[in-house]
Amino acid sequence: MRIVPSEEIAGRLVTFQAGLKKLEVQGAVIRQNTDLYYFTGTVQDGYLIVPAEGKPVFAVRRDVRRAEEQSPLRPIVPLGNLKELPALVDEAVGAPAPRTLGLELDVLPAATFFFFDEKLFPKDHLVDVGGLIRQVRMVKSAWELSMMREAARISHAVARAVPNLVREGMSEWDLMAELQRVALLHGHLGFSRVRAFNLEIFFGHILSGPEAATPSYADSPTGGPGVSPAFGQGSGARALKRGDLISVDTMMNRHGYLNDQTRNFSLGEPHPQLRETYDLCRDLHQWLKENAKPGAVTGELYDAALELVKKAGRLENFMGPGGSGVSFLAHGLGLEVDEFPFIARGQKMVLQEGMTLAFEPKWAIPGVGIAGFENTYVVTPDGLESLNITPEDLVVIS
Amino acid sequence: MRIVPSEEIAGRLVTFQAGLKKLEVQGAVIRQNTDLYYFTGTVQDGYLIVPAEGKPVFAVRRDVRRAEEQSPLRPIVPLGNLKELPALVDEAVGAPAPRTLGLELDVLPAATFFFFDEKLFPKDHLVDVGGLIRQVRMVKSAWELSMMREAARISHAVARAVPNLVREGMSEWDLMAELQRVALLHGHLGFSRVRAFNLEIFFGHILSGPEAATPSYADSPTGGPGVSPAFGQGSGARALKRGDLISVDTMMNRHGYLNDQTRNFSLGEPHPQLRETYDLCRDLHQWLKENAKPGAVTGELYDAALELVKKAGRLENFMGPGGSGVSFLAHGLGLEVDEFPFIARGQKMVLQEGMTLAFEPKWAIPGVGIAGFENTYVVTPDGLESLNITPEDLVVIS
Repeated sequence: MRIVPSEEIAGRLVTFQAGLKKLEVQGAVIRQNTDLYYFTGTVQDGYLIVPAEGKPVFAVRRDVRRAEEQSPLRPIVPLGNLKELPALVDEAVGAPAPRTLGLELDVLPAATFFFFDEKLFPKDHLVDVGGLIRQVRMVKSAWELSMMREAARISHAVARAVPNLVREGMSEWDLMAELQRVALLHGHLGFSRVRAFNLEIFFGHILSGPEAATPSYADSPTGGPGVSPAFGQGSGARALKRGDLISVDTMMNRHGYLNDQTRNFSLGEPHPQLRETYDLCRDLHQWLKENAKPGAVTGELYDAALELVKKAGRLENFMGPGGSGVSFLAHGLGLEVDEFPFIARGQKMVLQEGMTLAFEPKWAIPGVGIAGFENTYVVTPDGLESLNITPEDLVVIS
Repeated sequence: MRIVPSEEIAGRLVTFQAGLKKLEVQGAVIRQNTDLYYFTGTVQDGYLIVPAEGKPVFAVRRDVRRAEEQSPLRPIVPLGNLKELPALVDEAVGAPAPRTLGLELDVLPAATFFFFDEKLFPKDHLVDVGGLIRQVRMVKSAWELSMMREAARISHAVARAVPNLVREGMSEWDLMAELQRVALLHGHLGFSRVRAFNLEIFFGHILSGPEAATPSYADSPTGGPGVSPAFGQGSGARALKRGDLISVDTMMNRHGYLNDQTRNFSLGEPHPQLRETYDLCRDLHQWLKENAKPGAVTGELYDAALELVKKAGRLENFMGPGGSGVSFLAHGLGLEVDEFPFIARGQKMVLQEGMTLAFEPKWAIPGVGIAGFENTYVVTPDGLESLNITPEDLVVIS
């Protein structure tokens, strides 16, 4: 078991408490699995009470013993009934109601908010600290980066397995099934957490041939046909053919931490239009590596990168087929697929050292296919460093 | 592509509209992926406006063309900006504000509710129709049952593969990886949707030996060690040994519809205490099959079944190790893992023909292991019919 080090937990809580103070919030109650794992080291069923000043208290419903084994945080107190929570909050926060209390209102269901607002804390003012939590989480520690590097090694194992597994006539879906097995055998946790409502991701997008440019509801430059209207994205039933470009976009999870990587393979020579995008894709990565330094503004990076694509005459079908392209070039990631920062249109966020993001300049050309590779990067004083170790070249499988 | 038949969609909407009328709600806006799939046949990004009387309107952000291909519902109108939604609601509902409008407040984030309440529909009264939607969805049509039978065939393929894949010394996790591959190759959609906040499920629980009785935060009779505090349930790194009982609990998904099945295997003769529970487990299934008829009250079935276990002197470690057992014996399932009805303590729901539920009487004995099998059943006039086709016997692998 990879226990989250106690100094990690302590540091995160100090930053969060400073944020609460700045927002004039007297205390927060944290409930969501991802946030619980981040601030306690476990996702056992519980509520973490964080006063703006003083000692956090972790109230656990089940399993208390496992929470004690996995979390370095103390005290851990058993919580029999949710009605016991207000008294624990009173004690931890040290001030009587009315207070301003923070909840993850960006993810907690409305009905849960009503229960907290009307039944548990009727005298307090409840505010959203989801944004603050995302801000704390967006800057990664050395330990977190080491987890993300481990995830990158799983991505590498998966990409390396592709040439041996691909066969003409095999379906995209079956290739995905084989790659999923490789990922799990190499320590992929199996699923990836998200923050946005309705956002769904399963393994990634293993897409091939012209149908790969099928648009979908997925908030991603690639969509894919899927195998069912019940999940209309990702791999379809299409059989791999000679001449196909196969895009292997995988989201690997190591102890909760993600690595997002896309590599391209082709069965024989790919369509020249896809081959041609490759040099521009490489140039864009190089440009961003040099320019995405601490202090850079995400919206400005977006505009400048788009200008480069425009100058190269390749704006058509960039980041999605036809006019359906997404308005971001990179998304932050860590414990969730959709973390801060986003390199996207109109964003004003300033890059900081230790932020991590997946940059995925891609083209989806109707009737032709998709191309473009993707790395997960960390922001360093000198620009971006790739956490991925897989060579970026398009691999031609003869 | 398995398109949802138009008569399915029409029938569901009629039932839902009757429910809205009864609740005196003038219209509802449906947003969550599962509910969208149920009422429209697609999960493309959109909002379904359902007036209590009159024609529903499906407003789609992306991808409109795919929504048109997958959904038999008309009209489908493109939605550029969320600010266009109120005018579409006005037109569909046909009455001006103030109105009572229904939202899925059991799943929609609080922040989304605030936006609807303050910005989009400031004059209307917004109420929760999540419960109504769950009530409509809990009774399955013949078409839905045929999907659930297809999912049961995937469960069968996975269970049948176990004896050939199990090897002494192999880890639980690696067995899970191999079974996941089999599931995907047989048409499993790869993941399973849930309704409750923080509820997470990945593939199921493939657990072995004494450590299988490790309790966890999972709302399930079995927990399991997991391989990381980031997801502290399910398969662990433990190597399979002679004498192990291996519990293969899988959640298979066919076009969104689930099948939950548990079968037991042992490497040589299992611990006699686990072998002994098997007859009682079979008796409990037989008892429920005969007694869970339309009209039966779920809480009464729970009490009576528990009484049978008590009479047999096997209440200890039933439905979880030590005192940590869950207070349900069966959960409804369909498009989500946690549907109505629950055969659970204190529940007053009355069974109806066409309801589906997974019944899982299990024992988790600390230091010994877990045993018990599980089927997904449909309520018929004569009692329960199993949708599962896998023989229920414990399979001894020599």
